Amino acid sequence: MDARDTAERNGDREGMRAAPTQEDIRRQNLGALLRRVHILGPVSRAQLTAGMGLNRSTIGALTTDLTEAGLVLEEQPRDPGGGRGRPSLVVRARSQRVYVLAFGVGVDRLVAARVGLGGAILDRREIQRPGGPFGVDETLERLAEFAAALSEAAAPEARCVGAAAAVPAMVARDGGELRYGPNIGWRAEPFGARLSAAAGREVVIGNDGDLGALGEHTRGAAVGYDDAVYIHGDVGIGGGIIAGGRPLTGADGCAAEIGHMVVNPDGRPCPCGSYGCWETEIGEAALLRGPGRGGTLGRDAVHAAVDAASRGDKDAEETLRTVGDWLGIGVANLVNLLNPRIVVFGGTLRIVYPATAAQVRSRINRTALATHREHLRLRTAVLGDDAPLHGAAELAFTGLFDNPLEFTSS
Amino acid sequence: MDARDTAERNGDREGMRAAPTQEDIRRQNLGALLRRVHILGPVSRAQLTAGMGLNRSTIGALTTDLTEAGLVLEEQPRDPGGGRGRPSLVVRARSQRVYVLAFGVGVDRLVAARVGLGGAILDRREIQRPGGPFGVDETLERLAEFAAALSEAAAPEARCVGAAAAVPAMVARDGGELRYGPNIGWRAEPFGARLSAAAGREVVIGNDGDLGALGEHTRGAAVGYDDAVYIHGDVGIGGGIIAGGRPLTGADGCAAEIGHMVVNPDGRPCPCGSYGCWETEIGEAALLRGPGRGGTLGRDAVHAAVDAASRGDKDAEETLRTVGDWLGIGVANLVNLLNPRIVVFGGTLRIVYPATAAQVRSRINRTALATHREHLRLRTAVLGDDAPLHGAAELAFTGLFDNPLEFTSS
Repeated sequence: MDARDTAERNGDREGMRAAPTQEDIRRQNLGALLRRVHILGPVSRAQLTAGMGLNRSTIGALTTDLTEAGLVLEEQPRDPGGGRGRPSLVVRARSQRVYVLAFGVGVDRLVAARVGLGGAILDRREIQRPGGPFGVDETLERLAEFAAALSEAAAPEARCVGAAAAVPAMVARDGGELRYGPNIGWRAEPFGARLSAAAGREVVIGNDGDLGALGEHTRGAAVGYDDAVYIHGDVGIGGGIIAGGRPLTGADGCAAEIGHMVVNPDGRPCPCGSYGCWETEIGEAALLRGPGRGGTLGRDAVHAAVDAASRGDKDAEETLRTVGDWLGIGVANLVNLLNPRIVVFGGTLRIVYPATAAQVRSRINRTALATHREHLRLRTAVLGDDAPLHGAAELAFTGLFDNPLEFTSS
Repeated sequence: MDARDTAERNGDREGMRAAPTQEDIRRQNLGALLRRVHILGPVSRAQLTAGMGLNRSTIGALTTDLTEAGLVLEEQPRDPGGGRGRPSLVVRARSQRVYVLAFGVGVDRLVAARVGLGGAILDRREIQRPGGPFGVDETLERLAEFAAALSEAAAPEARCVGAAAAVPAMVARDGGELRYGPNIGWRAEPFGARLSAAAGREVVIGNDGDLGALGEHTRGAAVGYDDAVYIHGDVGIGGGIIAGGRPLTGADGCAAEIGHMVVNPDGRPCPCGSYGCWETEIGEAALLRGPGRGGTLGRDAVHAAVDAASRGDKDAEETLRTVGDWLGIGVANLVNLLNPRIVVFGGTLRIVYPATAAQVRSRINRTALATHREHLRLRTAVLGDDAPLHGAAELAFTGLFDNPLEFTSS
């Protein structure tokens, strides 16, 4: 098989496509306006006119269409301000009426949420199991139960417009097959098809690192940054890359396997089959490797290890220092390769990074290029453990923004 | 300073912009058609109609506009085929009439070319200096002389529509300032402004690795691959990344500094100030480090080292094996991080990679994830040492495709 994309062979490359038609444009403008309200929150017609570079009557026609489709409401502003003339109507997403289902599969927890248009989590279900993982069948069963309960609890007129799940595994580009998840022990699993069948509607699947990046880029620490790296700590290390404002997917949809960047060729074996992968040096196991710290992995164990170091436990301090060193080396590599403006630490790295920030910065100063670190920001995830869940919700909303009216009229 | 882009702060994020106006669309279609002829070569109106998804009369109007602007010619097909009806006119770029100037600064050579619309090198000038580098002043002087000679030799009615230069250095995003070029010893040099002044017209500056990637993606080994990595060997190791069909630039325009990915934390010091950077393990110095091989770097020395190994020189064999190992480790990291479909070896790596292919593949098989290496291709650059030069030409043509008529009417 020639691996080139069919579209490419036909010459449909970037910059050689025809411009969109009038119909495309209307659909694109409806989607852009709705997405704007979804991301930025309630916004006046005047702000939409200024922000989108369209004239007032076009904005009026678009909002009328979206209102009639039941996607937005228009209302008088709460604070009409002191200006002359009639205050501009405020457009607001109908978040209770239009929602998606978002699922998050972690090594030691399963979570599901009903997320309204506008991005708010309206309802959620969660089950934890320290030491996990959950098997595939049990995961499907629990998530299907959660989906039923969440839909049940929604208002009768509410409409589900999409569903997506974040999984700690590589996912094939078409969004269905789960290729390989070393830390949950799944491999070549048609998880998308099975979860869709169990939940009674199509569920798109995404990698948790990629969706964490999408979540933080849309509503978290990386809002407004076109070039961002998200690093997700769990048993393994996942990640997601935003480049030029767009998620970097790779040819198979499996980019940003940052946990399997080799940083220490003489290092420990990794479950992936290689040696010295970044996740063998900074994953939970590395932190809990010290004497007397064998046993169950997980968030509590990571907290305990960091607490022990802060209380002056020499072994814990030493281990944490080593982890901080490797964390810095890996971040510096990503910085030199991708030149991001911000690096966001999520999952258990929200605990580890603040405790090792000095180490990390020092390594970056020694290893990252001056040009690349000059404006670099390092931050912990704003959405906490829910960054991938929020990303899954954004993924689930994609179809709605591609075609707002057709999507809701069926 | 808040590092977020102004556009981002105003909410002009991907997917929230208004669709283009009628004028935008015409300009976009003219640019898309012209770029198609530039990239794909002479193409019939019928093929344009099918390929661009526009109707025949629109294609006719667009080609008429471009013909009147002197950018393309329409002619009868050489082989009209056996079909019924009038054969479709063939649209061809006027490559002798419309050209750009492309410059390439290497550690040990300077090159300049007149490149016609359609991508052919019409004329070139080159100066080599084994052991280089050239100083900034001398570089400017030589390139300005080349530019004058190339313009002089062009037909009187020929029109230069842009100029760009590839440099072995990090270049600020606005395309002017050269931030840091460790292997040519330049730092914080307003090279774009100085070369523009010397050449008497605006010259855009780009990193040689980025432009090598652009060249190979447009006209070389990576044509048709949306996700590609180009690795350029010279004294140092540069590179360029194509992700989702677009060049990955990074926040400051300095992405893909792949030579400064740390692969061996216990390794040798690098001119950048860090230790064990990839270029310390696979750059020319690493290959020429063996006994009796001190002295001048450069292409000839690399050839000699590889020849020595193939003749059975034990030291040379050992050195080459070690370099091949590190080359494989670095490529595997890039593969896990970026999930490209193809990796292209350019510059002196066109000599080194074929001689170490077994080593490289073996390391990739041990280190890269199975999902990522399944469809992976490894190739040498088709454009040879001129990949960055071709990339510079493409960069120089950008303005023309953005607005073909206005660009040529002034």
